[in-house]
Amino acid sequence: MNREVLLERPAAIFEGLPGPNEFYGQDILAVSQFNRRNLEYLFALAERMRDVVETRGGIDLLRHKVLAAIFYEPSTRTSSSFIAAMERLGGSVIPITQGVQFSSVSKGESLPDTIRTLEQYADVIVLRHPEKGSAAIAAHYAEKPVINAGDGPGEHPTQALLDLFTILEELGTIDGLTVAMVGDLRYGRTVHSLTELLLNYDVRLRFVSPEILRIPLDLMNKVRDAGYDVRETYDVHDVIEEADVLYVTRVQKERFTDLAQYEQVKDYYEITPELLKHAKERMIVMHPLPRVGEISYEVDKDPRAAYFRQVRNGLYIRMALLAAVLCPG
Amino acid sequence: MNREVLLERPAAIFEGLPGPNEFYGQDILAVSQFNRRNLEYLFALAERMRDVVETRGGIDLLRHKVLAAIFYEPSTRTSSSFIAAMERLGGSVIPITQGVQFSSVSKGESLPDTIRTLEQYADVIVLRHPEKGSAAIAAHYAEKPVINAGDGPGEHPTQALLDLFTILEELGTIDGLTVAMVGDLRYGRTVHSLTELLLNYDVRLRFVSPEILRIPLDLMNKVRDAGYDVRETYDVHDVIEEADVLYVTRVQKERFTDLAQYEQVKDYYEITPELLKHAKERMIVMHPLPRVGEISYEVDKDPRAAYFRQVRNGLYIRMALLAAVLCPG
Amino acid sequence: MNREVLLERPAAIFEGLPGPNEFYGQDILAVSQFNRRNLEYLFALAERMRDVVETRGGIDLLRHKVLAAIFYEPSTRTSSSFIAAMERLGGSVIPITQGVQFSSVSKGESLPDTIRTLEQYADVIVLRHPEKGSAAIAAHYAEKPVINAGDGPGEHPTQALLDLFTILEELGTIDGLTVAMVGDLRYGRTVHSLTELLLNYDVRLRFVSPEILRIPLDLMNKVRDAGYDVRETYDVHDVIEEADVLYVTRVQKERFTDLAQYEQVKDYYEITPELLKHAKERMIVMHPLPRVGEISYEVDKDPRAAYFRQVRNGLYIRMALLAAVLCPG
Repeated sequence: MNREVLLERPAAIFEGLPGPNEFYGQDILAVSQFNRRNLEYLFALAERMRDVVETRGGIDLLRHKVLAAIFYEPSTRTSSSFIAAMERLGGSVIPITQGVQFSSVSKGESLPDTIRTLEQYADVIVLRHPEKGSAAIAAHYAEKPVINAGDGPGEHPTQALLDLFTILEELGTIDGLTVAMVGDLRYGRTVHSLTELLLNYDVRLRFVSPEILRIPLDLMNKVRDAGYDVRETYDVHDVIEEADVLYVTRVQKERFTDLAQYEQVKDYYEITPELLKHAKERMIVMHPLPRVGEISYEVDKDPRAAYFRQVRNGLYIRMALLAAVLCPG
Repeated sequence: MNREVLLERPAAIFEGLPGPNEFYGQDILAVSQFNRRNLEYLFALAERMRDVVETRGGIDLLRHKVLAAIFYEPSTRTSSSFIAAMERLGGSVIPITQGVQFSSVSKGESLPDTIRTLEQYADVIVLRHPEKGSAAIAAHYAEKPVINAGDGPGEHPTQALLDLFTILEELGTIDGLTVAMVGDLRYGRTVHSLTELLLNYDVRLRFVSPEILRIPLDLMNKVRDAGYDVRETYDVHDVIEEADVLYVTRVQKERFTDLAQYEQVKDYYEITPELLKHAKERMIVMHPLPRVGEISYEVDKDPRAAYFRQVRNGLYIRMALLAAVLCPG
Repeated sequence: MNREVLLERPAAIFEGLPGPNEFYGQDILAVSQFNRRNLEYLFALAERMRDVVETRGGIDLLRHKVLAAIFYEPSTRTSSSFIAAMERLGGSVIPITQGVQFSSVSKGESLPDTIRTLEQYADVIVLRHPEKGSAAIAAHYAEKPVINAGDGPGEHPTQALLDLFTILEELGTIDGLTVAMVGDLRYGRTVHSLTELLLNYDVRLRFVSPEILRIPLDLMNKVRDAGYDVRETYDVHDVIEEADVLYVTRVQKERFTDLAQYEQVKDYYEITPELLKHAKERMIVMHPLPRVGEISYEVDKDPRAAYFRQVRNGLYIRMALLAAVLCPG
């Protein structure tokens, strides 16, 4: 994009993108809303956002627009990312991130009433709520677009989108890659959502987990029925040589009733410089963060450690989503 | 207003308003500061703010101005409304909305010192504090304008102003209307303040409450002495046919020592589609929110349900107040 | 500075300052980073910030820049000051000021990971953390500049800078003055840092404290070895006549094991109108605030009471630091 043009006419950032903007005025609730076509659109827009941030810090695309960031549970990373995204687009934020002390809620107000109240002040709502389905309820009642920033055991679509975008940015393509998911594949929401998104591409999938934290059967069957080359294993060493992407999540001690069992298997899921000696030279290690020991700090210096760049991609993806939802394009 | 003019010269928003701007540099502490003349001025400005928000989202009138939003008790609705108002005026906010954990306060700092400290960073202060008279104390010590956002059992003038503005916006006039206040008229701060403001107009007043929650005697006498057509009743059915405005507040179970009594009367104060069948076709149902059952959810679909539009009017009123207090006009 | 020039070209605010901008891209961690040359540069820039705020409220120097304000412990004053500073420079803030409920931290994330995550969204980091050395650790891991906003018993350099700037602004010079520090000189972090900074100037120092709260020996020796005229005393009356600056801090009752001892000495450290009758006509009383009784409220009316102007200078100093760190100058 020409920098002078964007300065004069910020909406020019949409020009020449592949296809129309399907997101304008829409809610972003689940990864099932995405397909190869609109993912390509979103990622192309996110790349422009990256250029804008790197060259000028931001763009006045959402001037006088207001985001209500409603966080019923604290999530510093996600709320900070959305706040920064809105601000770098020239917009403003009502940060409602107190976590516990919602005065109206404590007075017994329902979620629909809270949403319908706060949308009177804002142009778009970002909602984090501990209950599955809460974002869909909010979207049902709201007239303004709602973006799901995590509804408990439900979905966290912007995380899955930034994960996928990171693969594309780091390796230049998604088709043809071998993606290994490692750790807690049972309860790991991010793993499920990323897997769903990957089914829009031609990839090989490897699931590496302890027996009790295996990928849910219905998701496994979905992948298999779609004809994907997929394999489950207990040990990350089994996949380290072929993996283009190592997507690591935490194996929580608390999941094990038998601690001896935990001690026995935990090393299978720890990423160390030693392990990475067996990995391809051009591959990446990802993690949704925060980590607590599952990737050793020595790995940070390895150029294949992509997890902090992954965080940064969250900024670009959220800028792209906010822009797409609020501008006709 | 001409949109291009406002873009070039935001202060043009004050041009042609009825009368001078009496609010410039002033504190906004109590409804007694308002009279028919300056209410008309404020409402005319609020209508322009509504136009600005609806057509362009905001206006750069308070660029580089900073609001310190000091909330000693949480109030998501009110703080969000002021934050959005300041942001849509192009200004910025220092959100001090932690509710409990004021570090300086916990170290024993007095309210005057906290105010005199924070005003060094800001151009205007919005204060919510649980103690009656706190806003007046703050205003006494502050050099910058203070806006009272609720001082416990004291006042909450911006709520009363948005209530009155809503009546005007919804029904086109205030004079000549029959306004019925329903529910807890004894402890309901909003009811008292709105009643005070209505005494600037030619209205009929109906007070509907349980015996133990009747409107305070001194306020009742004030209304009567001023020659108003006023009546008290226990049952909302008595007023539903004549009411142009039904201003509903919550009857809290906790107020009753005898629960049997509560069960006996509570239906008198619940607003249902059934009840509204008896109401005028052109009337409105208002509520300061949050509600907890006193207006059933089915009423929301009724075009006469004005409570969410009422919330939105809070944005316009607060934009008008911030602008009037900070700009000579 | 010419106002029209700054409006068109905000970076002009750096033109003609004494010497180059040594702060660009640097961390601000400790007072030991400062010397007479870069202090003069910073104070000259801070004075321009004061002019900008007084005449126009702010300047669009940091447009599209984002500050991550990370406060692991609440500090309303310091966080508000940094937020206002960033906003008046046209930039934005991610306020992470929840004090206790850092979700990632509660999940066990390390400080380096939190910093490396949040710097992906921001251009500069302001950190308050209860542990000494935490800011240095953050700066070690961060690629973006880190400003120390207090690391427990460690440093709080921006407080010391605003203290020194206040002396300059109030009295027109620092050389030749007699500065008396009063109160808790043992644990008072601000006293130690200000003393360090004063060693860049030609001053006389007076330390007034109870025996158990005397200035640490190593700092006293440092001052003495540098050849300064310095004296310790128990009673503020001993220094009141010669002092140009009375820098007051709180003597906490809790420090005393023998309360009788506390009662005996506490009057030696209370600043009253009575005491100030013995002081010079042109001198100032300073305090880092909050105060709890050590300066009586009657003193506030005395023009020599500089502590609220001191707070305001914090805004200008932090504006200057943010600008200097983020702009080549």
